[in-house]
Amino acid sequence: MPISEQDHHCMQLVIQKTREGVEKGNWPFGACIAREGQPVFVAHNIVLETYDPSAHAEVVAIRQACTLLKTIDLSGHTIYTSCAPCPMCFSAIVWSGIRKIIYAAFPEDYSQLGFTSFIVHPEKMVEISQVKMEIEGGLMRKESQELFDLYYTKYGGIH
Amino acid sequence: MPISEQDHHCMQLVIQKTREGVEKGNWPFGACIAREGQPVFVAHNIVLETYDPSAHAEVVAIRQACTLLKTIDLSGHTIYTSCAPCPMCFSAIVWSGIRKIIYAAFPEDYSQLGFTSFIVHPEKMVEISQVKMEIEGGLMRKESQELFDLYYTKYGGIH
Repeated sequence: MPISEQDHHCMQLVIQKTREGVEKGNWPFGACIAREGQPVFVAHNIVLETYDPSAHAEVVAIRQACTLLKTIDLSGHTIYTSCAPCPMCFSAIVWSGIRKIIYAAFPEDYSQLGFTSFIVHPEKMVEISQVKMEIEGGLMRKESQELFDLYYTKYGGIH
Repeated sequence: MPISEQDHHCMQLVIQKTREGVEKGNWPFGACIAREGQPVFVAHNIVLETYDPSAHAEVVAIRQACTLLKTIDLSGHTIYTSCAPCPMCFSAIVWSGIRKIIYAAFPEDYSQLGFTSFIVHPEKMVEISQVKMEIEGGLMRKESQELFDLYYTKYGGIH
């Protein structure tokens, strides 16, 4: 998949938002929903902040974008995430109608944080569900990895 | 897995809540979180009501139970659902620490409603993720199927 300047811009917003989240004590993950390269909503993980195990960045971004646009159908949109979406997020993306995912880090990159007990790659989810989904990984992977390191340095793993 | 009277009671609550949801125009799915047979929170799907594609009954029940108990860890709890959880719900269940799922209907049972484009059975999710999860399907399946029929009769499929 060709990566545009707008893709870079959207992922930059994700990285920035993720950093804001980490500074406040949230887990180091962010996401952005965009349409034709224009960001609609950017979010970071708020699981700890809201006592909501489902409040991963991708789910939060989908919820907020849908509320904002008063729709449950985000088809035509792209989601940018700081890390490959977990199967919950992947499935929320499917249900929202989004069919394009661009992610930064790979699940293996955050193994130091202690989340490794439940990993299913989005590419595997595509394979078993036969859903049509464009997926590209690795955009600004290093910047995302740096935030895992920052999180680990500040908090020493998940808390 | 042996099914107790308390399991029946919890599933009865799910069926009742699902019916309430359908009467208000919501999709025909419900869930209950319980601990040692005692219901903690019962919910129905509120995707349409809240413009939130992630607001499946299981996710709503997890969110609300966590808010109520001020925790993100529901380990030791059981989730009862009117239908086999989709991969989003299955994964939310995993993240919440719940390791026991009892469901009523099977995904094939609601094919008439038009949700069939994205089905991955929870048993398949267990297989590919290697997560330890007790799963039992078919408890009050007929009652759940009747609510699919009711929904179809009232609204003619998803809307």
